[in-house]
Amino acid sequence: MIDTPVTKEQAAMIKVGIVGGTGYTGVELLRLLAQHPETELSVITSRAEAGSAVADMFPSLRGRVALRFSDPATAPLEECQVVFFATPNGVAMQQARSLLDAGVRVIDLAADFRIKDIALWEKWYGMTHAAPDLVAAAVYGLPELNRQQIKSARLIANPGCYPTAVQLGFLPLIEAGCVDTDFLIADAKSGVSGAGRKAETHILFAEASDNFKAYGVAGHRHLPEIRQGLSGISGSPVGLTFVPHLTPIIRGIHATLYARITREEDFQSLYEKRYAAEPFVDVLPAKSHPETRSVRAANVCRMAIHRPQGGDTLVVLSVIDNLVKGAAGQAVQNMNLMFGFDECLGLSQVPVLP
Amino acid sequence: MIDTPVTKEQAAMIKVGIVGGTGYTGVELLRLLAQHPETELSVITSRAEAGSAVADMFPSLRGRVALRFSDPATAPLEECQVVFFATPNGVAMQQARSLLDAGVRVIDLAADFRIKDIALWEKWYGMTHAAPDLVAAAVYGLPELNRQQIKSARLIANPGCYPTAVQLGFLPLIEAGCVDTDFLIADAKSGVSGAGRKAETHILFAEASDNFKAYGVAGHRHLPEIRQGLSGISGSPVGLTFVPHLTPIIRGIHATLYARITREEDFQSLYEKRYAAEPFVDVLPAKSHPETRSVRAANVCRMAIHRPQGGDTLVVLSVIDNLVKGAAGQAVQNMNLMFGFDECLGLSQVPVLP
Amino acid sequence: MIDTPVTKEQAAMIKVGIVGGTGYTGVELLRLLAQHPETELSVITSRAEAGSAVADMFPSLRGRVALRFSDPATAPLEECQVVFFATPNGVAMQQARSLLDAGVRVIDLAADFRIKDIALWEKWYGMTHAAPDLVAAAVYGLPELNRQQIKSARLIANPGCYPTAVQLGFLPLIEAGCVDTDFLIADAKSGVSGAGRKAETHILFAEASDNFKAYGVAGHRHLPEIRQGLSGISGSPVGLTFVPHLTPIIRGIHATLYARITREEDFQSLYEKRYAAEPFVDVLPAKSHPETRSVRAANVCRMAIHRPQGGDTLVVLSVIDNLVKGAAGQAVQNMNLMFGFDECLGLSQVPVLP
Amino acid sequence: MIDTPVTKEQAAMIKVGIVGGTGYTGVELLRLLAQHPETELSVITSRAEAGSAVADMFPSLRGRVALRFSDPATAPLEECQVVFFATPNGVAMQQARSLLDAGVRVIDLAADFRIKDIALWEKWYGMTHAAPDLVAAAVYGLPELNRQQIKSARLIANPGCYPTAVQLGFLPLIEAGCVDTDFLIADAKSGVSGAGRKAETHILFAEASDNFKAYGVAGHRHLPEIRQGLSGISGSPVGLTFVPHLTPIIRGIHATLYARITREEDFQSLYEKRYAAEPFVDVLPAKSHPETRSVRAANVCRMAIHRPQGGDTLVVLSVIDNLVKGAAGQAVQNMNLMFGFDECLGLSQVPVLP
Repeated sequence: MIDTPVTKEQAAMIKVGIVGGTGYTGVELLRLLAQHPETELSVITSRAEAGSAVADMFPSLRGRVALRFSDPATAPLEECQVVFFATPNGVAMQQARSLLDAGVRVIDLAADFRIKDIALWEKWYGMTHAAPDLVAAAVYGLPELNRQQIKSARLIANPGCYPTAVQLGFLPLIEAGCVDTDFLIADAKSGVSGAGRKAETHILFAEASDNFKAYGVAGHRHLPEIRQGLSGISGSPVGLTFVPHLTPIIRGIHATLYARITREEDFQSLYEKRYAAEPFVDVLPAKSHPETRSVRAANVCRMAIHRPQGGDTLVVLSVIDNLVKGAAGQAVQNMNLMFGFDECLGLSQVPVLP
Repeated sequence: MIDTPVTKEQAAMIKVGIVGGTGYTGVELLRLLAQHPETELSVITSRAEAGSAVADMFPSLRGRVALRFSDPATAPLEECQVVFFATPNGVAMQQARSLLDAGVRVIDLAADFRIKDIALWEKWYGMTHAAPDLVAAAVYGLPELNRQQIKSARLIANPGCYPTAVQLGFLPLIEAGCVDTDFLIADAKSGVSGAGRKAETHILFAEASDNFKAYGVAGHRHLPEIRQGLSGISGSPVGLTFVPHLTPIIRGIHATLYARITREEDFQSLYEKRYAAEPFVDVLPAKSHPETRSVRAANVCRMAIHRPQGGDTLVVLSVIDNLVKGAAGQAVQNMNLMFGFDECLGLSQVPVLP
Repeated sequence: MIDTPVTKEQAAMIKVGIVGGTGYTGVELLRLLAQHPETELSVITSRAEAGSAVADMFPSLRGRVALRFSDPATAPLEECQVVFFATPNGVAMQQARSLLDAGVRVIDLAADFRIKDIALWEKWYGMTHAAPDLVAAAVYGLPELNRQQIKSARLIANPGCYPTAVQLGFLPLIEAGCVDTDFLIADAKSGVSGAGRKAETHILFAEASDNFKAYGVAGHRHLPEIRQGLSGISGSPVGLTFVPHLTPIIRGIHATLYARITREEDFQSLYEKRYAAEPFVDVLPAKSHPETRSVRAANVCRMAIHRPQGGDTLVVLSVIDNLVKGAAGQAVQNMNLMFGFDECLGLSQVPVLP
Repeated sequence: MIDTPVTKEQAAMIKVGIVGGTGYTGVELLRLLAQHPETELSVITSRAEAGSAVADMFPSLRGRVALRFSDPATAPLEECQVVFFATPNGVAMQQARSLLDAGVRVIDLAADFRIKDIALWEKWYGMTHAAPDLVAAAVYGLPELNRQQIKSARLIANPGCYPTAVQLGFLPLIEAGCVDTDFLIADAKSGVSGAGRKAETHILFAEASDNFKAYGVAGHRHLPEIRQGLSGISGSPVGLTFVPHLTPIIRGIHATLYARITREEDFQSLYEKRYAAEPFVDVLPAKSHPETRSVRAANVCRMAIHRPQGGDTLVVLSVIDNLVKGAAGQAVQNMNLMFGFDECLGLSQVPVLP
């Protein structure tokens, strides 16, 4: 096979690094960046895989990504213009400062910089935060909410997958102030890739296939992130019950959101107007049922608004691909904004259906 | 292969007929009845398959069910002691009367006799009811609610799959009167066998696999059935939002129920006491997350009660196999009660895991 | 949402039509062509869906394909430069002539022009052929075999999915004449999308999921197509046993090929040399096991060569995405060749993994 | 929930122990033995889980198995009449002797006693054998081949899953001596539970789902086991190419077997006669295609014989549930034979379909 990389003009490109490229968000970043016309993949680190070719680990990248994994200790990340952290929680907060000091912009796909309340973060994540000042400086990378701040940000806290689907779904309602924010319910279902590429028994094929269950009902780490976001929009604390479930699909999140109406609105119109100018949020016609596969492998959130039997409960259905709009795609979208590229650059993949 | 039927004593057995045995509830009835020590499978009808062996259509039954499909027009159903209708809606209401008049007991697995309000039934099912008087006479076959009436019933309306999971999950709360019945939410997920064995595009493997979606948000036929049941327990109309979803599993329903607490209770204890004597309802320890596979192919409903962060919203997780406790198994349980057998007879299959 | 079509320069583009766009090869053509820089989607026909928007049927195309389905009777297909037939067998042979006469190039994704022996075709496909002369004129569109003829072809018989995977896998061995061509075995496994988007019971999720089976062992229509291709390469009739299987994946074919060695060779090297210049055939390192997901949604065939325990049986593993290299992608590759475009244009999607 | 164990007569029962009950063959033994009328589950060991209830780990067994895991060091296994080893390879060979000396019968579901040639075993399994004399004494537990020896055996080497499906499929042909035994091909596909309940990346849901691949083509440990079996039947060494594949189903093996005919026979009749008296081998009518789901959760092997286009290659399709006829079910069948029970006792589960 001859290689078929995207033809790129070297001069215009920015150098990109990835820390921790062996997980699902890492390989998804590679898939997207390999097709991005303005980036040059320069460095990817993995302690365990240092020296081996990325395409040996992920044969889907053969002929498209020629890079080898570098040892994190010696990788020249400072020579990049932007570095993505696709690492477990707690890594980026240790390493971001030196990169930022070297003038590198940083996008963290983990949770290190998402929660502004340090004590709250430490309670949910079970560790002491290494860089509280960076949390204060970081911008929460949800473009539909923070586009202007993202453009000038040097450190991005890329949102979690559930928080992206849930916040985009509730956003217009809470901005409009027309529902009871004391009793919001987010019943969310995630594909198994959301659990990461970790050797754990409960996400084995023979455990997770042909099976459906809730988990973390007592409390999931995305709860404080969603609450912070919605409370910020609302201006006061919201009451939210968040129940995540595991569904046997590889990619995809389906959030089913319930809210009690406190003031009449044309809800369909409210959503359509709010997202009219957004390139990656698609409000479906009334009575639609968005499917997770309609966004598979693409950077888009599709949603539909229902008011069953004209009652006082509103139901919002919101779907994303957890690895794209819920992680790597949104990270590239943030990068595009930070570097003044067209926001859609490298993100024009059509969803894969069937 | 030599055949290996369950050894049965002919004398004690009752003759059983099945109308419409080519769908999933039909083949599941065959699986269960083939292992039931007190029943003799006498007749199974199918217009399309008349004359062909049941085991040719379902090779899983080879060596276990020797029966052939009979033409419904000539099948000697009156010679049975009990006839199950595993037919589309609208069939049993046409045929039950003559069987009942002949002294045959009837268990309808479809919806013909479930809704007491005939006008409401006609609105949701889009046809004129052929036997309103039989609706009045029928007993709704949820043993945990109506065990005594079932024992003496001649006509059973076997509950729907979603209604079984949702009603069993809400039952203790509503009986105890400790939640706001104006704002109940049932977010339910069903395996694809729940859609039946029909050649329809949307349930093809290549459509439904690796995909998750809601459907029927505007209104699903199981909504009035659940409302009737819960209102009956409550003594006044309940406000319920019911959102069904399709999840890519073959069998299983997972209902996630939300209710706002209006009076403090020891909820775990409330559930354990309510179901202590029930052979087919299993209340898991606090903080559990029941999986659909833990009930796969078995006649049991498992449930768990959560109160996230000690707030005022209660979350109940309830799982069944839609084809067993949600259909054929519950039908056999009802038959056992009607004929004075041990309620568990023929229903002692251990769930298949993994 | 604002639309985000690929920016295209109108002047350079060719007008493209699709006949029968509601099946899986149709929607896959749409996905690929929507991203192709040199094509303008002009017409897509469907009798059943005439007038409705393509994106209403396939929400994955919202914001990307603005076209509506046209009635085949009145659709201006003659105004296109190329028309793809994504129709059932027997349609293209009726309609291709008038298009060809109007100067339109035609690529048939069905089987109408694949088999040169008309009597053989009529036996396997159970109909009288309507255009035997066009069969003679058609070029079999396997670029790795017929690249030069494809460049000047006006009518392309796009290969079947199994035949693509099997022929590419056997090709170097048969060209080299180093195996016993009297006893070739192709044990092939296909994802369920290969059966098409038809409402048939046996491909329902609840039938095909968590299940594996062979089918068509007595004889599958792709057998004469593969035999014709291999015999053509060999110069004499080959003996081939072909057993297709259905595996519960959406996309993908895995062909496991067995051949008895008659002359020693460096087989790894033989394959690497044969495909060194091919943009869409990837010979993996020795001892590899290609996975179907490594080609998911991409136009590539990956293969590996094994000689277990140094014995005299060679095992070749060959994988493709049946909807891409096995159908729509190969059709676009053929179109690129026919119109003098870069062969890879619009086909640079990176496989979607996980 | 009240418990619903199978009613058993204590007096007649034998005490059963399981070493290593936390894997899939362990839980499957528990499922089957919980329904067996003549066994009392006495001891189950697990170092990691000692003290915890079996039903806490496998909620499917709640109300059916009351046992707790015991520490292997102190578990009273000698008080059992039979002990099953559901352990990794290399455990039973260390522990079987003391149990045998104490008069306990032993059934090893791992590979320790399967290969008679100790050097060959050590080469494939990469360890020194601890008890070569026990290998000599052990009986290979394939009842269709060794029923008489099994009845009087004290130590059973329970066959591997692939070897069961492949040997039963080839058996009649090789006994009849009508195919070329120098060039046999077994193309086998296994569900993911065959890889065990181990936390390994390659069998994660997000890796193994919607994916198909071959593995171990260079050499799989079941190859020498199958070769030993077939060579034993043949009376001389057979040439076999064995290629295992991973298919995204939980349970099930589908073996597709190819052999070149050397002498004419009525092959359908040959198979039907060979297995006429076997309770757990089902020869389907000619032209059938057995599905893995037709044996799901049941102790049966179904097979079909094909001769495509009347050529000289015979194709045999053989399916089993790898956890039942390929492991735990066959072990119980062996136990029944060893203790003089009806061979089918506790094994009359009807396959679960859909």
